[in-house]
Amino acid sequence: MAKRQIRLGAFVPGTSQHVAGWRHPDARPQDSHNLKYFIELAKTAERGLFDAYFLADVPVTVDPETTPNLGLTGGFSAGLEPVSLFSALAAVTEHIGFIATASSTYEEPYNLARKFASLDHLSEGRAAWNVVTTSGPIVAKNFGLNDAPHPKERYERADEFIQVAQKLWDTWEDDAFEYNKKTGQFFDGDKLHPPRFKGKHLAVHGGLNVARPPQGYPVIVQAGQSEDGRELAAKFAEVIFTAQQKIEDAQAFYKDVKQRLTKYGRHTDDLKIMPGVSIFVAETEEEAKAKYDELNSYIHPSLGLSLLQQLGGFTEDLSQYNLDEPLPEHIGQIENGASRNQLILEIARQNNFTIRELYQWVASARGHWTIIGTPEQVVDELQAWFENEAADGFNILPPTTPASLDDFVDLVVPELQRRDLFRTEYEGKTLRENLGLERPENQYVLARQEVKAS
Amino acid sequence: MAKRQIRLGAFVPGTSQHVAGWRHPDARPQDSHNLKYFIELAKTAERGLFDAYFLADVPVTVDPETTPNLGLTGGFSAGLEPVSLFSALAAVTEHIGFIATASSTYEEPYNLARKFASLDHLSEGRAAWNVVTTSGPIVAKNFGLNDAPHPKERYERADEFIQVAQKLWDTWEDDAFEYNKKTGQFFDGDKLHPPRFKGKHLAVHGGLNVARPPQGYPVIVQAGQSEDGRELAAKFAEVIFTAQQKIEDAQAFYKDVKQRLTKYGRHTDDLKIMPGVSIFVAETEEEAKAKYDELNSYIHPSLGLSLLQQLGGFTEDLSQYNLDEPLPEHIGQIENGASRNQLILEIARQNNFTIRELYQWVASARGHWTIIGTPEQVVDELQAWFENEAADGFNILPPTTPASLDDFVDLVVPELQRRDLFRTEYEGKTLRENLGLERPENQYVLARQEVKAS
Repeated sequence: MAKRQIRLGAFVPGTSQHVAGWRHPDARPQDSHNLKYFIELAKTAERGLFDAYFLADVPVTVDPETTPNLGLTGGFSAGLEPVSLFSALAAVTEHIGFIATASSTYEEPYNLARKFASLDHLSEGRAAWNVVTTSGPIVAKNFGLNDAPHPKERYERADEFIQVAQKLWDTWEDDAFEYNKKTGQFFDGDKLHPPRFKGKHLAVHGGLNVARPPQGYPVIVQAGQSEDGRELAAKFAEVIFTAQQKIEDAQAFYKDVKQRLTKYGRHTDDLKIMPGVSIFVAETEEEAKAKYDELNSYIHPSLGLSLLQQLGGFTEDLSQYNLDEPLPEHIGQIENGASRNQLILEIARQNNFTIRELYQWVASARGHWTIIGTPEQVVDELQAWFENEAADGFNILPPTTPASLDDFVDLVVPELQRRDLFRTEYEGKTLRENLGLERPENQYVLARQEVKAS
Repeated sequence: MAKRQIRLGAFVPGTSQHVAGWRHPDARPQDSHNLKYFIELAKTAERGLFDAYFLADVPVTVDPETTPNLGLTGGFSAGLEPVSLFSALAAVTEHIGFIATASSTYEEPYNLARKFASLDHLSEGRAAWNVVTTSGPIVAKNFGLNDAPHPKERYERADEFIQVAQKLWDTWEDDAFEYNKKTGQFFDGDKLHPPRFKGKHLAVHGGLNVARPPQGYPVIVQAGQSEDGRELAAKFAEVIFTAQQKIEDAQAFYKDVKQRLTKYGRHTDDLKIMPGVSIFVAETEEEAKAKYDELNSYIHPSLGLSLLQQLGGFTEDLSQYNLDEPLPEHIGQIENGASRNQLILEIARQNNFTIRELYQWVASARGHWTIIGTPEQVVDELQAWFENEAADGFNILPPTTPASLDDFVDLVVPELQRRDLFRTEYEGKTLRENLGLERPENQYVLARQEVKAS
């Protein structure tokens, strides 16, 4: 059996992951809607033998009513819709997979199943769906609602949604279509299976008008950290994208989620856990540190503060304090807020960060793990996580696009390969093959086989 | 001023327009989900200087409950989702536009506006949205409904939908994004305009997370024939796809719709009327006729009959009659059925068609105009319609894919060019420029200009 290898996702928004990444001299924010630019990025990632290109997504933009420092909050204000962009990239790439985020709360199963099935055909088996349930009233208002459904309800709907999507993808058996020009038989009617699904939240009667995807189902990806999120992931996900700061926490998460798989008759290898990691790498440690400092120097203080205020859930106005001193000792935070709130305060105290250093830390990776160092140092850390049940691979979050992606491909990938931790060429044709995931059999074929066997 | 030129759309499904087109020896139904095949088709259409590639769409497939002769009804059972497919084709073509059909009843405005804006960016200004309201209970059941909303309601929603889509596309002024690396100003907050739309059927609060499309708005296409459909078209559409059999009817339709434009402050040139036409063309009339007969010979009689039964709205079972005799004199038809029902009976009587000939006629173009002849004969007819206020251009429906598309490009296009009725190279960069349509100004900029002027 081949040695277990690290899986890599490239989490590369056009306008950079770091909040001020677009201000880097090499960054090209003006190309954030330009296909040719994304073709370059995808080809770089493919040259780096990444398993997949990953795009986050929320159907919302900044808003004068709710966004502080409106015009400064650049990066995530506008861009291309992931499935459309990936469909275009499928035409001009050969190997790299495409993980597109889409909401189970604000899409219709029929439409979503179609577009992901189409992407899987267009890319000949390189599509993946990152299932998100999308919280918050701001997005809800873009869909005629006053607020998002309660988390419990969103996760129930997500569960039904994935079930019905899988049924839709199974509408046609792999060999349903005969195309018999002689007899006029286009398909075998016995191999057509409309879902007839009626759940609590969703109902879909008829079959999908797309042939079964080359991968059977596009790869299912999930990013939830909550109890509901972990359970949904254990039931359906084949890749988990997770935010972990420390190896101990990552190990606990890894163990917890992998253990839940048994309940659903799944094997630990059926789910790849890939924490996000933001990497500043250079030939020397000093240069790497300089890259970190350079990007941080681009953070507009108003923007950095409002980001910290928001992500830390602080109840006092931080702008009243001196940026170059630590947070006051008894700073208030929202009760029952996100787990990230706690983490941010913890990080501040551990490192004795000033407010400025803290917002720089927050802005740089938005709560993801950050490594700053030489290729050897970076790979030492990745290897430790990979070899100690903290990760099956990583979602690489290059702080500035395209420079940090180039850095990773040119500096880190060769070191990973030198240690035999990462492929030197793509093993398979489909994303599933590259990730080492099985192609799911059609559920109606399975049911028939079970009937026969019994 | 340049001579008025014919506009051409290529209505080319992968599995052929003619119901038995896929049985033609050159047809490639097995490639109906294969991007490489569609790239060939798009490049042929681009070689033929077509304005646009047009794809119809209904989110539904055949069903054992409702489809007679299930396995024989091949062509439209499965294929790729149009916007995804066109996004891929955008990456490998330069000039041709993309008219994707999408439903205003079964999509969400935010999601739809996003994907069309994305396609417009990916193609650098070659996207168009064919707005359909999608009737019938079978589709409704794929979206958790028992039946489609009443036509009146569907058209009201479509009207709101287009309004809100335009507002979403106007979220960002063309020059909203500054990308000022020096100051950190990403965009000008005064040039961001969330729609704040609240209609009877739809509500969208926040702005679109895509920059304004290169064409301002993707081109709006419409295909409704009904009173409501015509009114919606007069208000918003820039291209109409219509089914017309006879020049007199086409002229009446043309006049009616163009007259309605005034009410909305629009000019006759703001809307291009493009009837669909199915063309069998060859060097000689005999060969052309032979092509027609050949395809018709592939129609499975059960399929032909059930198609005729359904599209003609006949209340008696047609299979009880001799296929090689005309329809009985007093054949029953559904009361208050589609206008197509009447037309089919009329055509049968006028041509003294046998039942077999009638289903062949119905199957060949599904109610669209059919021309069979030499390039000269074909262009004589097109020219007569074009020069006598029956059409501004045509949607070409090649009966079998790819052979009939090749025929049109190789035989008809040169004849159109010889008579100076059609371009010899693309005039513009965007679909709007090629169609001779103006780029709409952002409505918020217009409003500001009006305030200043008053």
